[in-house]
Order: sequence, then structure tokens, then C-alpha cells
Amino acid sequence: MRAVRVHRYHEDPSIDDIGEPKLLGPLDVIVKIGGAGVCRTDLHILEGQWDEIQHPELPYVIGHENSGWVHEIGEGVSNVAVGDTVILHPLATCGLCLACRRGDDMHCENAYFPGLSNNDGGMAEYLRTSARSCVKLEPTTQPADVAALADAGITAYHAVRKAAPLLHPGTTAVVQGAGGLGHIGIQCLKALTATRVVVVDKNPDALKLAGEIGADETVVADGDHVAAVQDLTGGGASVVLDFVAEQGAEMDAWHMTGANGSLFVIGYGGELRIPTLEFVAGEKNVIGNIVGTYADLTELMVLAQAGQVTLHTQQYPLDRAVDALHDLDAGKVRGRAILVP
Amino acid sequence: MRAVRVHRYHEDPSIDDIGEPKLLGPLDVIVKIGGAGVCRTDLHILEGQWDEIQHPELPYVIGHENSGWVHEIGEGVSNVAVGDTVILHPLATCGLCLACRRGDDMHCENAYFPGLSNNDGGMAEYLRTSARSCVKLEPTTQPADVAALADAGITAYHAVRKAAPLLHPGTTAVVQGAGGLGHIGIQCLKALTATRVVVVDKNPDALKLAGEIGADETVVADGDHVAAVQDLTGGGASVVLDFVAEQGAEMDAWHMTGANGSLFVIGYGGELRIPTLEFVAGEKNVIGNIVGTYADLTELMVLAQAGQVTLHTQQYPLDRAVDALHDLDAGKVRGRAILVP
Amino acid sequence: MRAVRVHRYHEDPSIDDIGEPKLLGPLDVIVKIGGAGVCRTDLHILEGQWDEIQHPELPYVIGHENSGWVHEIGEGVSNVAVGDTVILHPLATCGLCLACRRGDDMHCENAYFPGLSNNDGGMAEYLRTSARSCVKLEPTTQPADVAALADAGITAYHAVRKAAPLLHPGTTAVVQGAGGLGHIGIQCLKALTATRVVVVDKNPDALKLAGEIGADETVVADGDHVAAVQDLTGGGASVVLDFVAEQGAEMDAWHMTGANGSLFVIGYGGELRIPTLEFVAGEKNVIGNIVGTYADLTELMVLAQAGQVTLHTQQYPLDRAVDALHDLDAGKVRGRAILVP
Amino acid sequence: MRAVRVHRYHEDPSIDDIGEPKLLGPLDVIVKIGGAGVCRTDLHILEGQWDEIQHPELPYVIGHENSGWVHEIGEGVSNVAVGDTVILHPLATCGLCLACRRGDDMHCENAYFPGLSNNDGGMAEYLRTSARSCVKLEPTTQPADVAALADAGITAYHAVRKAAPLLHPGTTAVVQGAGGLGHIGIQCLKALTATRVVVVDKNPDALKLAGEIGADETVVADGDHVAAVQDLTGGGASVVLDFVAEQGAEMDAWHMTGANGSLFVIGYGGELRIPTLEFVAGEKNVIGNIVGTYADLTELMVLAQAGQVTLHTQQYPLDRAVDALHDLDAGKVRGRAILVP
Repeated sequence: MRAVRVHRYHEDPSIDDIGEPKLLGPLDVIVKIGGAGVCRTDLHILEGQWDEIQHPELPYVIGHENSGWVHEIGEGVSNVAVGDTVILHPLATCGLCLACRRGDDMHCENAYFPGLSNNDGGMAEYLRTSARSCVKLEPTTQPADVAALADAGITAYHAVRKAAPLLHPGTTAVVQGAGGLGHIGIQCLKALTATRVVVVDKNPDALKLAGEIGADETVVADGDHVAAVQDLTGGGASVVLDFVAEQGAEMDAWHMTGANGSLFVIGYGGELRIPTLEFVAGEKNVIGNIVGTYADLTELMVLAQAGQVTLHTQQYPLDRAVDALHDLDAGKVRGRAILVP
Repeated sequence: MRAVRVHRYHEDPSIDDIGEPKLLGPLDVIVKIGGAGVCRTDLHILEGQWDEIQHPELPYVIGHENSGWVHEIGEGVSNVAVGDTVILHPLATCGLCLACRRGDDMHCENAYFPGLSNNDGGMAEYLRTSARSCVKLEPTTQPADVAALADAGITAYHAVRKAAPLLHPGTTAVVQGAGGLGHIGIQCLKALTATRVVVVDKNPDALKLAGEIGADETVVADGDHVAAVQDLTGGGASVVLDFVAEQGAEMDAWHMTGANGSLFVIGYGGELRIPTLEFVAGEKNVIGNIVGTYADLTELMVLAQAGQVTLHTQQYPLDRAVDALHDLDAGKVRGRAILVP
Repeated sequence: MRAVRVHRYHEDPSIDDIGEPKLLGPLDVIVKIGGAGVCRTDLHILEGQWDEIQHPELPYVIGHENSGWVHEIGEGVSNVAVGDTVILHPLATCGLCLACRRGDDMHCENAYFPGLSNNDGGMAEYLRTSARSCVKLEPTTQPADVAALADAGITAYHAVRKAAPLLHPGTTAVVQGAGGLGHIGIQCLKALTATRVVVVDKNPDALKLAGEIGADETVVADGDHVAAVQDLTGGGASVVLDFVAEQGAEMDAWHMTGANGSLFVIGYGGELRIPTLEFVAGEKNVIGNIVGTYADLTELMVLAQAGQVTLHTQQYPLDRAVDALHDLDAGKVRGRAILVP
Repeated sequence: MRAVRVHRYHEDPSIDDIGEPKLLGPLDVIVKIGGAGVCRTDLHILEGQWDEIQHPELPYVIGHENSGWVHEIGEGVSNVAVGDTVILHPLATCGLCLACRRGDDMHCENAYFPGLSNNDGGMAEYLRTSARSCVKLEPTTQPADVAALADAGITAYHAVRKAAPLLHPGTTAVVQGAGGLGHIGIQCLKALTATRVVVVDKNPDALKLAGEIGADETVVADGDHVAAVQDLTGGGASVVLDFVAEQGAEMDAWHMTGANGSLFVIGYGGELRIPTLEFVAGEKNVIGNIVGTYADLTELMVLAQAGQVTLHTQQYPLDRAVDALHDLDAGKVRGRAILVP
């Protein structure tokens, strides 16, 4: 089968012809890929940034945002059948450790992460994953339409779901960064809460779209945005969801967070430098977030299938994966780039 | 192997010589039983009360409160190894349905219940269950010492764990019924909260023991107990844990529950008859409870292994299972009867 | 001033000319009434049903759902000023007991309830209440437009707010009773959650309106409705909000509640008769609800002022209060009857 | 009356003879001081550190940790009577803003802080505060015995109370700093949870005491302590309560916090510098904490009056306040220094 493989860091991956994946364990599932999202993390992989964290053996297939159809199942698989349309939770978890038993998938002690850890990912015709990663969809769903929910979507949803209990009517939530994830986050906030949503972004076009999908206020990140948000919120928001969290935006996010408020960190790259006195005096919190649980993904798919969360995507044939990566790097992708067979 | 089998309802079970259980699926585990608790539910099974709910095919082996050593494992089992000492969650769950994925084991859509549903239980030399039921213990633990925690213990713990957030200092929790479950419940309340614990029981000896294991106040259920509890609590408790819930005790429990309070139903057999106005005027709740989650069992074992929850047990050889059942029925068992190999 | 006073039970109240209320304590506020809702509880007061609970001295002024303008304030009042437009929380609380200090207004140990307890209510030109009951509104708000939120609204909102954490995407909430309160409850559910809302009512017109304001499914309460809801939900809903709770509806509500689900009782009049086994086997709950907190009312006013909760009202001059009560009793009021000066 | 007044920063305060405080509003209470704690914050006040935050007009009376007897009450006060023994919440709150109405005292929009803001504190014979600050105690309680709970105690309790839901059996909580606050925090952890408590401090004597009051493990902060805690916890604790938070301890605290864990910041002075990637990859949180609510103080007093939280104190006559401050600064105070009349 064809697959997008990384051979060396700081080089383009190549489209190789390799063998199809095989079932290795009783809960394994082989999925025929219908859509594989192209994520900024793929660029970071190519830059070698994930090498020391996940140390995959090269060459390997990237792609961690996948949807498709079940092709083959292990003998212990009972939740999906061959032919089912599925979206895949990015992590293949063990189901037996205590974190898994609490429904806390991302802290599984024995998980692997296809396309990121030393396991082939989904920019290929077929992928091996676990039955525990499969969320069954309505047969009419087109995998390429929803694939971006498998990673970008679940990550935004998870953070919003955690923040929602803090967001009763009368509060304000600030979304910093109205790109791929932020865009989904805004829609999730509108679906799950009645909070006022203020969106901050450098890009006026992104803010225009934010307004169309539900932002109550938009603020251009032009240097005066922290003061503008403080004005709009009487000193800071109850919740700030920071989808950027680098190049200084992370400190802006902290300063836009009000007393008794919480900063949800979702993006990464920057460094927070906060005197402990500020945590104490304002009784403010910083909340970390990583991807989401299997249950989160099922809930998000309910919203998606009801039309409450929609995605802008741009499809590329699998063979043009390198173009998609280049376009993403050059800021030319509108919404999410999706590779299709 | 020897096994305690029910052949006909309303008759004693017999000790039969039957074949050992076999692995049927990749997550199956065969456990050599070291201790099997004898529960009032076993008496109810013999009376045929569970026939229409679980409709097991007769004859079958009873025993749903088990601990022992891993004897054989399926190919997909990674959390336990042959020889491990284990206590068994009573339900064998699928791990793939949404309830399982949320950590909500008791609402698994595909579970079986050895010794209760149409599956052989643990009053035998060996038992087939799932890897998902196995909680690994320290190798020095004697299964017979802890088996009662597998059902009685987890049930009491689960209810207390749910009630704990309501029980800040200054509140009162009433435990109705200081028998097998209530006795564990009192210890769990003392371990998990700083609430004042008031114990109500007909039996002065049970109350004496309750006092020794932590009850702050004890009240004999002599007909004046509802008034006595109302006096002690200024009109009713924040939480009432009803381990009896039959023969009128259930209504006593409601009347001992104060405004803004919650009645946790754990026992069963009676009927609550409550005007809807009483729910509204006092903003009172009734909370159902069934067994507990796998995580609950792991937490309870931490308490048990630290000596914070201790059990009174009375051992019987497996061959004397019928005597144990008769003794239980006759009220002659102090603590929990445990069958040992 | 003119005021609607009850002189004898089982008789119409009369419009009397009485003295204006005076400030009695430092936190007292005199409010010029702009709108006073007419509630089914007022009919129950006239029937004498509240006599033994609140034992007011007759004659007294009824009316516990009020909005207006601040007319005079005590020396300790700092949250409102003369001339402010306000809606009034129905209970005048002490602010010093532990329940008040936890924000749990309805369980204040020293509260009075104008129009219900032995204190004159708001079907009059002026009302004495506490600064603690005043929620300040935008000056452009018309009191008569929002008065119904002071009791009907807050009660529906409070129950929905408590239920919301149980109502993640993929769940179903059943609203039984699409009248005054239910109508607001449906809108609150849509604002605060992404759950599917199923509305059950005997009246097809009420269901039609329910559909217009957001119900996803409607079910006529024609005797087959319990089965219909069980079909729609695969055995029962996660949450049932019962705004009826009498004449058998209360048991229907229980049977429409699924395993692991919660029945929220808001209406009253009937009796729940539930075997304790049903609480246990399904791990189901019954949750009581009474009015709501001051904070609830502020949150509801945010929704109302944003247009997310709207009300159907029918205004009557204060002098025609008896007609309003008769119309309510005869089922001729569409939405809520509001007395205006 | 005699009072300890600050005249100039960087100088000792003096014992002045000044007029007694007068009631200014209907909810005011004059308290005859029975015990006034001496806090490190008093040293910081003398150093001028609080000048720009609270800008009090000099001279003024310090002392924000007070207990005594009610001497005089305003006309609106109903929760305490002259002669009552009371401990005082440090903040005098308005009771009318939305934060107060939610029970969230520390975020009151209109509060004053006797001894810190521009209001005389309790190192004097009498203090003016609000009825809303008074927690009534048993008449036999000696104010000097409990005064330290008014600030040190409530602050430790509040953080532990927030952390408790995260601390089920099987988890570990690390307490960094076993001084005045940490010492209370350890006892609160033992009272409210069944977590394992690991205490880290530089001072072996403090660790010895920690062991006596319930610490399960103690670790000397000798440079290897972060690694030691990681070993004890398999990579980091579920909760770290940092009562130090300066001089590098704050970063140690972060590194002792495990994946999915939370660092509770209570001390202050240092700066946290954390890459946003660390928040994301480990899904870790930093939680700010400031003092506590009125309800927290009532709960803590329940623990104290039940003997579950005890204090080491060292009494000084009011006239020797300067000696007490000097001793504190020189590290010569064991437990808490308390000024007595």
C-alpha cells in the first residue's frame, strides 16, 4: 500500500509502497483510511521535535488524525464489525490500567500513539489500531468530512468540556486563537454553555469567521488586546482558553484571566512566568489539557452529526501529502488539510 | 473439581464434582479460589428470587464474592500473571461500551455476573472471569481474609464514596444497619470524611461494635429512633445511608433525612412512599446505589491493606458450604462467612 | 395604597386600601411594584392549603412573584439605590446563617416569604422586602415583562442548572409538563446544555409551542407516552424534569427515567411509590428542587436580557386581580398572568 | 485602649494609647480581643510590602488573626450577642455582591481587611469588624488557643478542602513546608481524606512533628528531595500543597507534581517558570488559593473543637508585641505567637 513515511528529519517524507499492517493482538483493528488530517504536529515531527519524546524508529508512517472503515478485526473485538464507518481516537489504550478503568484514556500507562510513537500512522491506505480507538459512526458519514475531529476536534472539545462548569450565564470565556482548534472550541462553547464568548486573534478574517460561528465579541490581537479584554470583562475573564500559548500569547492569556478565573492551556511552545503571589492574590488557576477521552470523542461526534460543530476542510489526494504539508507550513491551508485515498 | 451447585430452587445446593472452567476468550482469566463469601443474595438465589431477573440455566455454581490466585490467562491479558493474588470485581465487563469507557462498570451493556447470571460462580475450586475483574493484591494477602470486600465491601464503599462530598465537617451521616455492609460503611466514612457518624440498629451488640470501629453516636432502633436522630441532628441528617431498606426501615431512613439532605439506598426489599411535596419542600434526594466500580474496589483495597477497613469473618471449608448457608439463614454467622478450599 | 388581601380562605380576596409598608430594619427595601405574577400557589393559598405550613395572620396581601422599582432603602443597603429597576428573589433571607453563607438561600434559617409567610406580598402598589432579595436590572427593563421569572422562572432554572452537569451530548432530558415552568425549563435546557430535549404534555398546543422554543421531540401524554419515551431513549432518559408530579404523572416520570438516571421533582401534589430495589438495581435517583438561589436568579436574568429565555404573559390591572385568579383557575391564562399598577 | 500601631515602615511599631473603635454601620461588631496571632505578613507590612497593594494611612493598628468576645453590636446584627466568644474571619465582607451571594467571601467586591487594608486590626484591646466575620464558639473556648486558626488555619484548610476531591485512597499528597500553615494542612488532610501524606521540609524537627501528627512519609529538603518524592510516587504526586512557594521551592513543587496532578500554591514570594508544553503533555494544573470562606472557618472550628486539629502556640502579652515580632523574624517562635490582653 502507499504510505507517507519519514525517513530523515528535516527532509520531506516520501510516498512509499509498503506492506499492509497485520493484526497483532486480539483487540487489534485494521482500518481502511478514508481521511487523514494534516496537523501542525506533523511539521514538528519532521523537524525532529518529537524524536526525543517518542523516539520512533525511522522510517515510519505519520498521521494521527484518522477516520475510515473497519477492514479487519481481532478475535476479541465486539464493538465494531468489518465495514463499519469509524473515527479513531488517536491513542490506542490498554483498557486494563487504573487510568483506563477510570475513563481517563490519555493517562493510560500502556498506550501507543500511531503516527507519533513508534507505530505507523494513518497517512496510508490502512492503519492498525485498537478496538478501543474506534467510535462507530452512521454509515452515511464521509470519513474525510470528520477526520479533523479525531485530534483537533477532540482536543478543543475536551478543554471546553472541562471549562463548562465554570461558565454559567453572566461569565465570559476568552478564546485566544481562532484557527483550526479555536474555531471548534468556539462552537463547542456555544453548544455546551450560555457564556459570553470573546475571541482574540491577529487575523481579522479569522475573527470574521469567529463572529459567524457564534463569537459574541471579537478583539484583534494588535497589542492593545489584553487591555481590551480587561475592559470587556471588568478586569479579566472567568475562563481563557489559549489555543496559541507561544510567542508571548501565553502571558497575554494569563493577564486576560480575571480573579478567581482559570487559564486553560491547549496550545504550546511558550513559557509561563508567573509570580506565586499572583496565583494567591487572585486565586487564579492554570489548567493543562491534552487531547481528550474516548467519551469526549463520542460526545463531539454527537454534536458534529447534529450539525452543531462544523469544519472547514481542504482535501488532498494521499499522493500529494507533501504539498499539503508545505501548504500548511506556508499558511495556505484554510481550515484543516485532509488526505484522501 | 468440587463446586457448590444449585439444581432446583427451594432446595439445598449440592457439592458436585465437575470439570474445571476453560478460557473462552482472549481476556479470560481462570482463578484458583482462595476465599468465596457467602451472601444473603445466595439465599435469595436459592429461593428463586433471581430466576426471572438473571434466568440462569440450572444446575449452576453460585458464589459472587471471590478472591484467589491467577491460574491461567488468555492471550490478551496483560494486567495479571499466573500466580498473582487477586480479588475479583463481581461483574465481568466488556470494556468497550460507553459505560465501560466512562469507568462506570456497573452499567456495562455486555457484562456477565458469575454466580448470579448464567455463568458459574466462585463457590468452587476454580472460576472463569475476565482480566477486567482482577485487582492484583500484595502476594502476602490471604484471599480468604479479603474476599468479603469483593461484594459487601465494594457496595458499602461505593455509596460512602458518592456521599463523601456532602459530608464536610459539621454534618452528620446516619448509618442504618450495622451488619456486614454497614460495618464496612462506618469504617469507610471515618476514613474518607470528618463527618459525625450516627449508627442506628436494632441489635445492641451491633451498636457496641459500631462504637468500637468509629461511630460517634449509636441509637437503638426501638421505635423512638427517628425522633432520637432528629434530636441529635436538629431535624435530620445531611446523609442517611440505609443498608436495610425493608420492613419499614426505608421510611424511617427518609424521615431521618434532613432538609437539603440525601438518602442513599443500599439495602432493598421495602417500598418508599413519599409525597412529591416532601421532595420539594425540603429539597431532599433519594440516591440509588449498586455495587461499585473497579476503581472503587482498588481504592477499598488500599484502605484494607492499610488496616483502615477490617472485617470479621468466619471460615468454612468448601465442603461445608450448605452449613454456611444454613448458619447465615439462621442468623448464626458473625461477620461474613467465607468458604475456603 | 391598593392591595389584594385574603380575608378568609375559600373566598375571593378583596382589593383594599391600606397603608404603605415601612422600613423596619437597616437592610429593608420598599419596592414600588411594576408587575406581580399570579401563580397557582396563590390559588392554593386561597384554598387554605398553606395555612398550616406558613400560618399567616389574616387579612394579608398575597403575591410572591414581583418586580418593580426601588422606592426607599434602609441605612445598611448598598447594592441598590432609589429608582433602580429590580426583580425580587421571593425569599427575604438573613445573610448570616450558615446556609446563607454558603449561597444556599432557600435553606436560610431566618427567612420570610412575602405573600406566603406572615408578611404582605406584592399584589399591591408597594412591597417591603430585603436588599438581599433585589437583583438590579437594566433601567430599560419593564418589570411586568420579567416578573414571572421571579418565581416560575427561577424554579425552572434552578432545576435545570442542577441537572445540566448530567446532560452531556448524547443524553436525553425529558420535560414533563410544558406549561409556565416547563416552558421556561425547555429554554434553559437549550441554553445551558446540548442534550436532546423530549417534551411530554397532554396538550397538543403546548407541545406545538414546545417545538417552537427548542424541543427536539414531543410526545402527547395519551397513556402510551411512557413506552414512547422508553423507545426514544433506549429504556429511559438520563434526566426527567417533572413539572407536574401529581395525578400519576409522578410515577410516569419515574418510569421514563433510565438506569443511572435522575428524576428531578419540581411540581408536587402526587406521591411516589418506589420499591427500594428499583433504586438499587437501576442506580436511579430522585432529586428534590425548591425555587432557587439569588445567584440562580441573576443568571436567569442574563439569559432573559439576552433573549435566550422569553415569556408569554397576559397583563391585568391590579384592580382586576380577582379576574386573573379566576382565569388562572379556569385554565384561561395563556402563559403567566401579571398584575400591573 | 492600647494598640500596636505602625507609624513608619522599616521601624518597629509602637504600643499606643488610642480611643476605642465605634460602631459605624448596622452590621458592625466591636470585639474585645482575647488573642491576636502574629503572622509573617505583619513583618511584610512593616517592610512596606503591602503599602502599594492596600495603601493604609499611617499610623494604623495591625493584626489580622483575631479571636475574642463580642463587646457591642449594631442594630442589624442577629447572629451574635454581646458576650459571645467568637473567632473572626479576617475579611469583613458586604454580603450583597454576587461573590458574597455565592458564598465566595474572599472575592467580595466591597470588603475591608482589618489590620491590612486601611482599617485598624486586632493587636489592640478592641476591634471593629462585621457581624459577617463572626463565628460563634462554645463559651468555654479560650480565644488565645484558637486565634491562629483565623488566618493560618483557614488558609491551610481552604486549600486542603479544595484538594480533597482529588485525593481518593491510593493517591499521594505532598505537603511542602511543615511550619505554621503546613502543620495545620497535614492535620486537615488526615481528617478529610485517606490519601498518603508525604511531608517535605528542610528542618528535621519540623519533620519529626509532622510524623507525630500524621505524615505517612517525611523527606528532608536537602537537594535530593524532588527525586525522592518522584521515587515515592512513581513520578510525582496527585496533589502538591506548597506552603513555601519561594526561593526555588515553587519549582520543586511543580516537579514533584505528577501527570494529571495539581500543584496548590499557598505560600508566595517565588516565580513559577513553566513551559506551556509541560502543562499540556502532563495535563498538569496550578491552583491558586487565598485564605478561605466563612463556611471554611466554621468547618475548621468543628475539627478544632473535636481535637482533630491542634495548634502549637506561644503567648506574649500585648505590651510585648514588638518582642513577638522580633522573635518571629529571628525564627525563635515555635508554632504561632499569640498576643494576649
